[in-house]
Amino acid sequence: MKYHETPLQVRFYEVDAYGVAWHGHYVGWFEVGRNDLSQRYRMGPLQLKEMNLLAPVVELDCQFKLPAVFGAPLIIQTTMEKTEVAKLIFHYRILDRENRRVLATGSTTHVLTDLKGNLFYWVPPEVLERIEAMRKYLGV
Amino acid sequence: MKYHETPLQVRFYEVDAYGVAWHGHYVGWFEVGRNDLSQRYRMGPLQLKEMNLLAPVVELDCQFKLPAVFGAPLIIQTTMEKTEVAKLIFHYRILDRENRRVLATGSTTHVLTDLKGNLFYWVPPEVLERIEAMRKYLGV
Amino acid sequence: MKYHETPLQVRFYEVDAYGVAWHGHYVGWFEVGRNDLSQRYRMGPLQLKEMNLLAPVVELDCQFKLPAVFGAPLIIQTTMEKTEVAKLIFHYRILDRENRRVLATGSTTHVLTDLKGNLFYWVPPEVLERIEAMRKYLGV
Amino acid sequence: MKYHETPLQVRFYEVDAYGVAWHGHYVGWFEVGRNDLSQRYRMGPLQLKEMNLLAPVVELDCQFKLPAVFGAPLIIQTTMEKTEVAKLIFHYRILDRENRRVLATGSTTHVLTDLKGNLFYWVPPEVLERIEAMRKYLGV
Repeated sequence: MKYHETPLQVRFYEVDAYGVAWHGHYVGWFEVGRNDLSQRYRMGPLQLKEMNLLAPVVELDCQFKLPAVFGAPLIIQTTMEKTEVAKLIFHYRILDRENRRVLATGSTTHVLTDLKGNLFYWVPPEVLERIEAMRKYLGV
Repeated sequence: MKYHETPLQVRFYEVDAYGVAWHGHYVGWFEVGRNDLSQRYRMGPLQLKEMNLLAPVVELDCQFKLPAVFGAPLIIQTTMEKTEVAKLIFHYRILDRENRRVLATGSTTHVLTDLKGNLFYWVPPEVLERIEAMRKYLGV
Repeated sequence: MKYHETPLQVRFYEVDAYGVAWHGHYVGWFEVGRNDLSQRYRMGPLQLKEMNLLAPVVELDCQFKLPAVFGAPLIIQTTMEKTEVAKLIFHYRILDRENRRVLATGSTTHVLTDLKGNLFYWVPPEVLERIEAMRKYLGV
Repeated sequence: MKYHETPLQVRFYEVDAYGVAWHGHYVGWFEVGRNDLSQRYRMGPLQLKEMNLLAPVVELDCQFKLPAVFGAPLIIQTTMEKTEVAKLIFHYRILDRENRRVLATGSTTHVLTDLKGNLFYWVPPEVLERIEAMRKYLGV
């Protein structure tokens, strides 16, 4: 199993009154990593929309281990869990790019719906194909 | 001429590493004030969209006079400028709710377009009616 | 056990390309609810800082059940879990203010540290007093 | 006169309900460009703080010409205006990285203060030296 890596640098406005990146921004960074990965397999938000699909987040969790300061060069690591059901589960790690220490971990669970929000109970074949290509790349 | 008033409180995540509200958030606060006003006259973003209209911001300016701290109770004051052309110009003041001191001023200029972004050179009558009702309320 | 309630309205810039509130903003809303509650018991971020304390988030989870649209009037419900250790665990529910339907649930876990980030393994008595007053209010 | 260039890609959560980058995020992008430039000349926010200095924004303006969509590769161009007084004036252009079209322009004006917010009427020599090195690089 491998992680797809996306570089990112902490922006000034992402730092809070405590002088470290505000915890809520990690959710956005997870998304940056997820989109960077999924767009390569035509599974980005706009690419799904072209297939009349949405993949809304239904669950989110994050564990914060070490703070990130302004300007810190980070790596967002993203991988995918193998699931039997019509759910996409992504796992993330935020690393300090210099010393490779893990600053945070987390995951998001997504369902597949049509544009009106109706849930898919099975993954459409054209999507399954893309997921399998992504899994092959990630080794999961 | 009067200002429409919208109360707002500085959120923790809006405060930056200097311990004061980050300047970019004022743009969002202006928008909160503008939407609070314009929705009362059926000129909010979704109400315009129902008429196949958008009112994108084409110009923005802001003058920062005094900082705002976490939890500070603010007032966003919003008014409108009378224009002869198909432009909407809103003016704003951010006040400390307690001592009524002006923390910031600013303005946004909006054009009217259809949903594809094609510019309107005149204001459609059904919109003009709403603008005139809003102007009457504001005394402009 | 009761929830402390904080009203909130979805802002335009909190809505994403799917036309619903972006999931990451819920983390900020949880914080708005938590601060509204904790400040009443002198446990807000600045009040803790005056005691040379920080209460950083170490864990976060959120379950998204129904979308929230622009302008939707919401209620953030916040309560606290009784813990034996030096951790603060807050639980949240985001409700539609009109029909009281639950749109999302979640929780955050916080540790107590000094201003340099050194962990407290016990809760200082002056903080315990405040936590107990908050618990009494919440019935936990 | 030249512009310092910083690459940037539009994030999903930066896109609003209209399907284009929300105008307020441009203020954050200007800041990303400004910090990328000024840190090279030891004029970044933390580097100034080490000299007991702040450079708060007192004026901001932005002109929006063309929308930016999700994932669009952008260039933030940043330059500096030569001023005789103790003010820093930065000018920005946001370009589409592919066709080099200008999507937005803008500027920010900053004063210099000590950490308590007291205004400097002259630029301290150690700062002037850094500004002059930055000006030399920019040809202004």
